[in-house]
Order: sequence, then structure tokens, then C-alpha cells
Amino acid sequence: MHPAIQLSRRSERLSSSLIRDILHLTQRPGMVSFAGGLPADELMPELDFAGLGGPSRQYGPSEGEPVLRELVAQHLLGLGLKTGPDRVLVTSGSQQGIDLVGKLFVDEGTPVLLEAPTYLATIQALRLYGARFTALPLADDGIDADELRAAIARQRPAFVYLIPTFQNPAGCCYRDEHRRAIAAVLDETGVPLVEDDPYRDLVYEPVDRTPICAYLERAPWVYLGSFSKITAPGLRVGYLSASPTLYPWLVKLKQSSDLHTQRIGQEWLARFLASGDFAPHLERLRSHYAERRDAMQAALLAQFRGYAEWRAPAGGLFFWLRLRQACDTFAMLQSALERNLAFMPGDPFFPAQEQRYPALRLNFSHADPLTIRRGIGILAEILSESMDQGVPNRGAVAALG
Amino acid sequence: MHPAIQLSRRSERLSSSLIRDILHLTQRPGMVSFAGGLPADELMPELDFAGLGGPSRQYGPSEGEPVLRELVAQHLLGLGLKTGPDRVLVTSGSQQGIDLVGKLFVDEGTPVLLEAPTYLATIQALRLYGARFTALPLADDGIDADELRAAIARQRPAFVYLIPTFQNPAGCCYRDEHRRAIAAVLDETGVPLVEDDPYRDLVYEPVDRTPICAYLERAPWVYLGSFSKITAPGLRVGYLSASPTLYPWLVKLKQSSDLHTQRIGQEWLARFLASGDFAPHLERLRSHYAERRDAMQAALLAQFRGYAEWRAPAGGLFFWLRLRQACDTFAMLQSALERNLAFMPGDPFFPAQEQRYPALRLNFSHADPLTIRRGIGILAEILSESMDQGVPNRGAVAALG
Repeated sequence: MHPAIQLSRRSERLSSSLIRDILHLTQRPGMVSFAGGLPADELMPELDFAGLGGPSRQYGPSEGEPVLRELVAQHLLGLGLKTGPDRVLVTSGSQQGIDLVGKLFVDEGTPVLLEAPTYLATIQALRLYGARFTALPLADDGIDADELRAAIARQRPAFVYLIPTFQNPAGCCYRDEHRRAIAAVLDETGVPLVEDDPYRDLVYEPVDRTPICAYLERAPWVYLGSFSKITAPGLRVGYLSASPTLYPWLVKLKQSSDLHTQRIGQEWLARFLASGDFAPHLERLRSHYAERRDAMQAALLAQFRGYAEWRAPAGGLFFWLRLRQACDTFAMLQSALERNLAFMPGDPFFPAQEQRYPALRLNFSHADPLTIRRGIGILAEILSESMDQGVPNRGAVAALG
Repeated sequence: MHPAIQLSRRSERLSSSLIRDILHLTQRPGMVSFAGGLPADELMPELDFAGLGGPSRQYGPSEGEPVLRELVAQHLLGLGLKTGPDRVLVTSGSQQGIDLVGKLFVDEGTPVLLEAPTYLATIQALRLYGARFTALPLADDGIDADELRAAIARQRPAFVYLIPTFQNPAGCCYRDEHRRAIAAVLDETGVPLVEDDPYRDLVYEPVDRTPICAYLERAPWVYLGSFSKITAPGLRVGYLSASPTLYPWLVKLKQSSDLHTQRIGQEWLARFLASGDFAPHLERLRSHYAERRDAMQAALLAQFRGYAEWRAPAGGLFFWLRLRQACDTFAMLQSALERNLAFMPGDPFFPAQEQRYPALRLNFSHADPLTIRRGIGILAEILSESMDQGVPNRGAVAALG
């Protein structure tokens, strides 16, 4: 009489999130975390809600607070996007934007093109809806436009998902010629672009970062933005903008998901963004994160040369270390956690198994420079031990530690 | 070269929300709104965030803030649910709980049993995922357990969705024998129950309201709760609890949807619920809403007798008027909006067209008693005109106005 519970086929595709599991562990006192994309607690702005929260206690518009939508639209117009306040949708964090994109486009088997590697939680969210991935290899200056054209012709994807600016996990930033060439391919083929851009304001040196969406003339697009990395992620406020054909669908999907985004956080953000405090706050973030990036780069140069390849990123939150030899990065993580250090193994960032190569993602925004040096020291020991074990004929590597 | 945009089949099932459209209109100054389930602005608690928002600026746990989960668990244990803090998931409003249930259970064509009428936004959210509805007629004391058993045998639904306490839109409250009989049928068949219970604390007279989930011994369950109706909906904080087989899936789906619920609202809620201010606040709400219910009941008795049937609800937010003759309620709404009055036509609350009967849903929590009397007067005029036009052979009805 008791049949098994009938879950959706979708639920069978639900994977546990490594990030969530690791984030749980990183809440242990004394843990050095290079794992998540966590902003530094000590650099976050004070949340001062004085004078807010009167009318915004009531239900609000699904699209978001008009004053915040106006500010976001100004920002996006400044980046060259063809949009306006009536095409800005405030989301419950940028993660919700990704989920809405999945809801909008993806049935079981829907082909989607993205980068290899790419953001882990996007892979999970789109896989949940049944996406069939084709991933384009990512070079230091972006994916290749000709490969994109060929993959579009072959796969006819519902959309292309890219993180062109300070990519997660790879840290790279697309060159402007690549951005323009990719936009041209999308305009030519009419395939929608979903551009995920949460890191753009964390920039530490001059670099091309015009959104590809700004170069599109005909192709439909969705642009995903976030306040989590530059203010306080605990507020869960992000936004999206989209071309006129896609925007109304996303509003309806948003409403069905949670009616609207919490209002008090939107009110506070609008006040903070419009205040004289925002620009100096951003400068302070950039200067501290640049210092942390430099500290990690120096420590890596001292300890990892010869064992991994990487480039110091011009912005964002991550170093991506491509290891020179195969290595069990999950076993490494296990050893690291035992020594109160967390990082992300590279494997889960690859949408397709066959494109994987051994790699680590290291976040540099959360720990201070001294802790970063200490953490990289521990990681070098672990890597050396791991290579020692994994490749028994290269005992010399143990000298690394 | 420009193929049509390929949206998901899901998106084709996306309907515009009447509620959202009407809520837009009700923001017009001077509008009397009987439409939404809006709490009274002037009765909401002050949001005082002083001393909060330090650590909770950072990313937080997908499950929610431990202190709030603990308080919710205590509340649910008090209601008889077999749960604990480790099976409470904080959601971005109760609407997100409904969306997560859809994600968990519903593929295209998945059978779902629910009440006729039922909550409009549930119909929309589950239809989006492809639910095929079978609806059980709702009497004043609930759905019939034997009809439920027969429908389960016939349809083999993935779950049964009920709002047993101060049902939306019908306002009725299931009798305890019905609750127990329904629980027995679910235990016997093993079909999961999704119990939506956002109104339970808005109670104006003694009435059975033990959650059906509390009577379940074997059947899986999801219980959806909300803080929107008793504090401030703009915070978008709700919760769910679920039986052990279902809970872990819902946490993963939550994480994929928006990582976690905003933290500052959770912190404020935990402080408010644990404070000495919460109980008197709830008493104040109940007493004002009871007064408004009585005002609407008196006005309806004076103006609607003979033209509609209804029962004054023992709790919740709504009167449900079953009209004695067929009538174009959307045309009535149009006339009403022209006179700055909003209400909800009954049709969209029916999951299946063939079960519809002419009805109106009237909210009594948002407007004060004087405004309620005025609004009911306008509505009576409109109803009279509408019946006059709709049924040309009954000119005598015009005397109603």
C-alpha cells in the first residue's frame, strides 16, 4: 500500500553542492578559507537601516524597488547596455537570476553552450532543469569566436552562458577583440547570450571589460549582476536586465518563484549606492583585494613554481592553478581540511568530464595577507605530499615542502 | 539566419498573474483594496535593526539562521508536528516553499490533488512545472475523506496540496474529524501531504486548527509556514518543515534557487519572536482584524443578502462570496477599478474550469472598518448593475442598488 515517493525526474539530477559542504566546514573557528567567493567581513559596509523600513514592510513590486531599478539602469547604460529602468529586475541574489534563466530556457535535453571551466552553481542549477552541456575551452583571453560559431551550428543551443570578466573559476578576462567577435557570432546566429558579471567592479588594473551584451545589436540577451561581492552577500540582492523579448518572461518567473525580493535590503542599497560613501568603499575594497592578490601571487611564486601554471588575475576573487601533473585534488582537500585549510578542487567546475584537467581554485578576498602566506605554505606542503604519494617515481618532489 | 528564441515548454504554461496586475493598480492613491491578502500597514511591527547586521552581512547557511530555525521548531512541536530545528528550512517567503514543492515533485503531466477553489499562485506555480490537476470540491468543513481516497486511487497523485486552516480563498476551516480522516487516508495510501498554513495565527474565535501534518504517522509531508501575514511581508521570510525523506531534497533545491534567504530579516524576526513584544502584537492584530471582519460581515448582511452566500470566517483574511446567479465578475472588476475599488473575481482560484461557480474573494485586513463599509456599498452597486446587465430578463434586480 505504500508506493515509493514519486519525485520529479528533475530531482534525480540534483547533486549535493560541494561548495555548500565546504562552506559549512569553513565556519569552523581558525579555518583558513580559500574555498568560497566570500568577501572580507571586515571590509563590508555598515548596514544602517535608520529611517528605512516603513512602507517597505508591505508586499512590493515583483520587478523590485523603483529607486534601485533606476540606479541599476543608470549603471548599465553607462556600460553601454541598451536598457532602462523598466527592464531591470531585482533578484534574490544573482544565483536566482541563474535559476530563472534555467526555468526560462531549459527542458530535459536542451543544449546549452558554456565555458570549460565555469561557475559550479550554474552547472548545477541548469543541470537540474535538464540542460545538455557543450563546453568551449577557455583560454587566457576568452573562448574562441570561430569555435563558438562551429559549436552553435552543431548544437543549436538555447543560449550561451559566459562569464567574460574575471571569470569564475579561471580568473581570466576576455580581450576586447574576443568580446566583439563573440557578439558578432551571436548577432549572426541569433542565439541568446546570458552574461554573468558579478565581479566586474573588483578591478585591480586597467583591462577590457565592456560587457559583451553591450556589443550585441540583434541577439537576445540576459545580463546578470550582483551586489554580493561589493556590499554584503547576506542581503541576497542581485539584478538582471534583458532584451525586450526576454524580459517579461523573467518577471513572471520571478513572481512565481518568491513574489519579489525583500525590500529593506533594496532600500538600503539604493541609499548606499546614491551616497558619497559608495565610491570610497569600492576604492577601499579594490585596494585591499589587490594587496591580497599580490600576497597570494608572491606566495605562489615562492612555493608553486614548477608545479602549477597560473596568471595573477586583473580583478575578481580567484586564482586558478593548473597543476602540471595529475593529482587527487579531493584527497588533497581532505588533508587540507584536517589542517584547517579549505580550497576548491577544480573538477566540479567542468561541465563535461572529458575536458577536465587537474586544477585548484583559490580565493584571495576572504583572508588577510598574512593568513594568505601561511595558507599557501600549508597548501604547498599538501601538494608536495600528494604528488609524492600520487606519483611514486618522483620522490624528489617531496623537497618542495 | 535568425531562428525563433527557443523557450522551455514550461514557459509556454506561464500565465500572467491577475494578482500582480491588480496589486499594481491597488498602489493608486485612494484605491480601496479588497484584492490582495495584504496585512494592514498601520498594524505592522516597527522594524528595528539596531544591533543586527554584523556577521549576517556574510553568506549564510542555506537552511537558515540557527536561532530562527530553533524558534520555528519549538512552534511546530507545539502544534504537534514531529520535527526539530534540523528539519526547518527558512524560505524567501512561503511562495518559495510552493515553488520548491513544484520543483521537487512535478514533471510535465504529474498528477496533483488539491481543493477547488485554492490559492491562485499555487495553481500558477505548479502548472508552470507541468502539474495535471484534480480538484476536490471544498465544503464548509473541508474536503471529504472518502472522495480523497477515491481520487487517490484513480489519479495516483504525487502529492495532495491543502490549506485546511482559514483556507484561501474560501475562508473555511476544516473540522477536526475531517483532519483526522484525511490524515488516515494519507497514511493508508502513503501519498505525501503539502499543507499550506500561512493564516493560522490570525484566529478570531475558537476553532479546530491542528495541522493535518500533526496527525500523520507514516505519510511523507511538507508543512509551509509564513511570517508575512503576522509581521511584515516585505521581509520575504517564510519557512517549511518536512518529513525526513523529503527534507534533504528541499534544502538542495533551495540552495540552487537563491543560496539562502536574506539574513538580516531572519535575525530581526528571531529577536522579535523571542521578545515580549510578539504576543501583544499578535493580540492587537487579531483584535483589529476581527473588528474588520465584523464590519465586512455587517455590511454584507445589509447589502448582499439574497444575492450571495457566504460564511463569516473564523480566522484568516478573506470572505468568499458565492453569487446566486451567473455574472461576469471580470467586467465587475473593471467597473470596480474605475471607482477605485479592487477585489478578486473567483474564477482564477479554480484549478479546473468545469468546477467553477460565480464567486468573489474579498480581503478584510487591509482597509479600516469605515473604508470597508464604503467599499462594500460600492461593490453592491456594481453587483446590482452587473446582474441587471448580465440577465436582461430580471430588471427587478436593479432595485438592489
